[in-house]
Amino acid sequence: MLADDGRLLDLGDLLAGEDFDGSFFASDGIARIRTAVAEGGLPELDGAGLRIGAPIARPGKVVCIGLNYRDHAEESGAEPPAEPVVFMKASNTVVGPFDEVLIPRGSLKTDWEVELAVVIGRTARYLDSHQDALDCIAGYAISNDVSEREFQLERGGQWDKGKSCETFNPLGPWLVTADEVADPQHLGLRLWVNGQPRQNGDTKNMIFEVAEIVRYLSRFMVLEPGDLINTGTPAGVALGGLPYLREGDVMELEIDGLGRQRQTVGQA
Amino acid sequence: MLADDGRLLDLGDLLAGEDFDGSFFASDGIARIRTAVAEGGLPELDGAGLRIGAPIARPGKVVCIGLNYRDHAEESGAEPPAEPVVFMKASNTVVGPFDEVLIPRGSLKTDWEVELAVVIGRTARYLDSHQDALDCIAGYAISNDVSEREFQLERGGQWDKGKSCETFNPLGPWLVTADEVADPQHLGLRLWVNGQPRQNGDTKNMIFEVAEIVRYLSRFMVLEPGDLINTGTPAGVALGGLPYLREGDVMELEIDGLGRQRQTVGQA
Repeated sequence: MLADDGRLLDLGDLLAGEDFDGSFFASDGIARIRTAVAEGGLPELDGAGLRIGAPIARPGKVVCIGLNYRDHAEESGAEPPAEPVVFMKASNTVVGPFDEVLIPRGSLKTDWEVELAVVIGRTARYLDSHQDALDCIAGYAISNDVSEREFQLERGGQWDKGKSCETFNPLGPWLVTADEVADPQHLGLRLWVNGQPRQNGDTKNMIFEVAEIVRYLSRFMVLEPGDLINTGTPAGVALGGLPYLREGDVMELEIDGLGRQRQTVGQA
Repeated sequence: MLADDGRLLDLGDLLAGEDFDGSFFASDGIARIRTAVAEGGLPELDGAGLRIGAPIARPGKVVCIGLNYRDHAEESGAEPPAEPVVFMKASNTVVGPFDEVLIPRGSLKTDWEVELAVVIGRTARYLDSHQDALDCIAGYAISNDVSEREFQLERGGQWDKGKSCETFNPLGPWLVTADEVADPQHLGLRLWVNGQPRQNGDTKNMIFEVAEIVRYLSRFMVLEPGDLINTGTPAGVALGGLPYLREGDVMELEIDGLGRQRQTVGQA
């Protein structure tokens, strides 16, 4: 973990094999870490040479909100939705923020999407209010909701087919705890391909805000600790008229206060 | 487990806390049980009074094939698809075959779907042949792919919204191992509501057969041991013009050789 004073601290002994999964969040794992930090006993970590994985274990589910920024709906040729558009990604798409992203075999239209990711900390079922919804959020991270547009839109039916290919959900580097994000609706989010700016949006332009997304979803499914929600992407994806990804391309993503990702594109 | 001679055998000591999950299937769990049965050391189980849960642990993902029987596509007002329609259900919808099914709050269109379920036994990634696909199947079960048609079809966008409500995937009672199913394309499947016959189909009428579904999916996502695939439903659902489910209704489902389910409908 990254402490307020900028030091990297090693949680290995404290967690003794526990992962950042549903039972970690359900058993107040973040509070346990906070206590250990306050007590000052955690050893410093030398991060040199270590791979940075996703900041949570494989989620129970990955739920995504489609067309949640007006400008992205427009570039996709879609009307802004009257209520949240919901689809799902396979959980085994989640990889680390610096891992390779693989273009699926036969793909010509692999695309990027920088998104604010929400990690659930408490079971959410038929929530009534936005405050209840915010209370269920453990924290935030950067998600790259990688998408294959031909598979998603031209191969019959539902979007999930173009969203679930292996490596299609780089996540992290940090899970920033909810208390550290003063306003989730006031975060700039940006993405570059080979150094060229592609997406440059702000979560203030979401059609459905984070609290409403969590409240809304909780009426259609039971959200559980460790679940992941991708809250939609602003304009600037390849689908809007830019070249799709090719082997060797480099994607860089950043969201204010949540850090930065970088992935090289490979071929499956 | 149910042995060939009709006795129920207790796997508790043999598995020592292990569940029927991905690592069970990946570590040849079924072969381990087979060996133990052949050696004759498993104690008999008195099943009286025990709840029957789903025959596998919570899957890593639940992938569903839409409109895979010509008569169901027709009653849904859809063209038979040119290639498999793929959508997903949240994994935490899986419940036991005799558990209560809950109508979501605000729902007027909760519907049933009897389906042949496939459980994956080996990692499937870019499979080439139907034989490779069949080799990745651990076994078969009955699935009730419960669906809320207003949420699925009238609330904006993608089907997943009407497929992931709690209790929406009764599974079991048995996982029938693949070697016990001579031909997965020759199984009658039936569903009754309050004793009235509603669905009466045969897997021979699938548009895309089981082996093709697994081969096809493996090119869009990595299927892992313990994953569940619902292979589509024949005609006779409420969406085709019958009354939707109400509190107190009783659903019964059966597939040749796979056993029988029974669920009472409650209100969330």
